[in-house]
Amino acid sequence: MPEKINGINNSRLFEMMEAVKRQPSLAKFVFRVNNTWMNGGHSRSVIKGFFGAEKEDDSRVSPFIFEIDQPSSLLGRNEGPTAVEYLLNALAGCLTNSIVCLAAARGITLTDIESEIEGRFDLRYMFGLSNEEENILENIKMKIRIKGNELTYKEKQFLCELGKKTSIVYKIITTPFPVEISVEDETSCE
Amino acid sequence: MPEKINGINNSRLFEMMEAVKRQPSLAKFVFRVNNTWMNGGHSRSVIKGFFGAEKEDDSRVSPFIFEIDQPSSLLGRNEGPTAVEYLLNALAGCLTNSIVCLAAARGITLTDIESEIEGRFDLRYMFGLSNEEENILENIKMKIRIKGNELTYKEKQFLCELGKKTSIVYKIITTPFPVEISVEDETSCE
Repeated sequence: MPEKINGINNSRLFEMMEAVKRQPSLAKFVFRVNNTWMNGGHSRSVIKGFFGAEKEDDSRVSPFIFEIDQPSSLLGRNEGPTAVEYLLNALAGCLTNSIVCLAAARGITLTDIESEIEGRFDLRYMFGLSNEEENILENIKMKIRIKGNELTYKEKQFLCELGKKTSIVYKIITTPFPVEISVEDETSCE
Repeated sequence: MPEKINGINNSRLFEMMEAVKRQPSLAKFVFRVNNTWMNGGHSRSVIKGFFGAEKEDDSRVSPFIFEIDQPSSLLGRNEGPTAVEYLLNALAGCLTNSIVCLAAARGITLTDIESEIEGRFDLRYMFGLSNEEENILENIKMKIRIKGNELTYKEKQFLCELGKKTSIVYKIITTPFPVEISVEDETSCE
């Protein structure tokens, strides 16, 4: 098997799997985002450090900075995409990465993956106007095209099913994921 | 009440609420993301058009383009943040926006909102090594600081609780949200 398949270093992938089996603490990762409200629907997120493999990461030279806003039809100024679009982006990227790694680990060379993802939402939820008796249909649909050398449709479906089982963002969205929010008291934050 | 509070045009906000009460079809929004795998853990998302208020939006002149990647410790090259960081960013942005709008609708002027959000994840899930009997603790924690003129701690907590009830990203993460993924057959995509 070549050292890299689909751009993934397979020997390192298997080493990591063996390492976390022996020492589960290596598997713990903590990712962080700092967000600041700018004005109206616009806020800004800064992403840089994270903890993983038992240490604070220092591989990122500069922070990643993202603007979140609403379009004018939702009272914003289009300084960035909406939060729900960032979430759809996260799901597409996570599932794609899962499929690429799973294929690499099985020695399957992929040539292309493209996906279109759409989320249907109802403003009445955001306005607190949702009526329990009326079914406000909200869902996410994703179409994915996977291409690889001599890959059958069944194999593509199999990779996608496995991808769903190992994609953390897919899990976060499709299960009731625990989120704990605390409002800081002024005395503790100034 | 001034026309704009917290950068939100309050009269337009109330007009929108009244409009979707009368005509619920105006409340339907469909957001979309196109994602293309680049190499290894790196994929790219393009975000531009969406459907809402009964028409296709044309207010965005250029697309928003985002790189998703893994850090080197997760076999990537840091071309962008990880998918889970994008998801945390989405949650922070959505909850902040909900709080800003809810405060505006109540005539409450806010001066600052800052949040720190962290997500704890276990690589064993991504490797398909999670053991049902062992509890792999995975969760999201968010600390939020809200400042406003003469705003009491109780009022801040109240705004945060209301924000959780109307933030669509909070809902998507904390409930089992429906995601439908279809693998396109080659014949239908080429």
